[in-house]
Amino acid sequence: MASPRTGRPGRRPGPTETRERILACARRLFAEKGYDGASLRGIAREAEVDPALVHHFFGGKQGVFVAAMEFPIDPAVIVSRVAEVGSRDELGVALARTFLDVWEDPASRTPLLAVLRSAMTNERVATMMRQFVQATLLTPATETFRIPPIRIEAAIGQLIGVAMLRYVLGVEPIASATREELVELLAPTLQRHFDEV
Amino acid sequence: MASPRTGRPGRRPGPTETRERILACARRLFAEKGYDGASLRGIAREAEVDPALVHHFFGGKQGVFVAAMEFPIDPAVIVSRVAEVGSRDELGVALARTFLDVWEDPASRTPLLAVLRSAMTNERVATMMRQFVQATLLTPATETFRIPPIRIEAAIGQLIGVAMLRYVLGVEPIASATREELVELLAPTLQRHFDEV
Repeated sequence: MASPRTGRPGRRPGPTETRERILACARRLFAEKGYDGASLRGIAREAEVDPALVHHFFGGKQGVFVAAMEFPIDPAVIVSRVAEVGSRDELGVALARTFLDVWEDPASRTPLLAVLRSAMTNERVATMMRQFVQATLLTPATETFRIPPIRIEAAIGQLIGVAMLRYVLGVEPIASATREELVELLAPTLQRHFDEV
Repeated sequence: MASPRTGRPGRRPGPTETRERILACARRLFAEKGYDGASLRGIAREAEVDPALVHHFFGGKQGVFVAAMEFPIDPAVIVSRVAEVGSRDELGVALARTFLDVWEDPASRTPLLAVLRSAMTNERVATMMRQFVQATLLTPATETFRIPPIRIEAAIGQLIGVAMLRYVLGVEPIASATREELVELLAPTLQRHFDEV
């Protein structure tokens, strides 16, 4: 692992310490400037490290955000996992399964719910999340699948709404339905949003 | 308007004062016992008034809850408005229009968002809301339209998720779409949930 070059005299902080300082600065900058307004260079300057080190630790701005927000999954992973399906007819099933994989696992559900709650009650978090989802999920998905953005959003809306009823409110019978029942219920709806009209 | 009979000596409180006292007691009881556990009789006893007076003011437990939570619309109104459509083929359009009518009006959107935010961050509010929605929206809708509850929930999930993306996160282009574009986008999806498979 590269050791941090802070350009400051005195004790050299260890990699973990430096990583944490970068994340703390990133959280502050993202909250102040939004996802679009904060840059990897700006975060590095704030943390008094070389931008190359931030890149080395996190791969890029998206990776810094995912780590800073303790986001359980990188949207790029979701897009590429859904893109693995061979035919366009199976996009609905692939998206339903990928979404449920993430939500059914408490280790990823808990931080996702935390982010969703913050976005609902804090305007700054809502702005950050909007810009992040736009840049890392909607734009790549639109380009990869050539589906109009509003239709991708309608599909994501279907999934988020069901997640709220199932995991937050616990409304029956959707709260106790099996994963496969949910895939059967939702996949054709998602597919309809993706099919040409 | 009937004057309240509190059965207590001293100054007779006016109707507004009594109404507010009933609502304060109702809020406390609903939070403590949930929607199902609180009764109109229990609320009346807590507020030291005759149950007939609570009935006179609010029509019933559902009405007390709607007023106590400052709910902008009684779910019974939504069910009966959607039920007004002549044919089952038009349920999707009717539900999309009715839902958007409520959300597009800031006077009802603001309190709805407040309830949604509380339900997402407070387990007791989530329980109250779950029981309330179950008793006043899901059960009547299932009986009126003879649609399996899980399908009604999938449709409500579609609408709630889109409301979050449009009104809370402000994700484009769904945030700036016209009401009619949204009806066109969502009505066929809702209808698909309602059609027999």
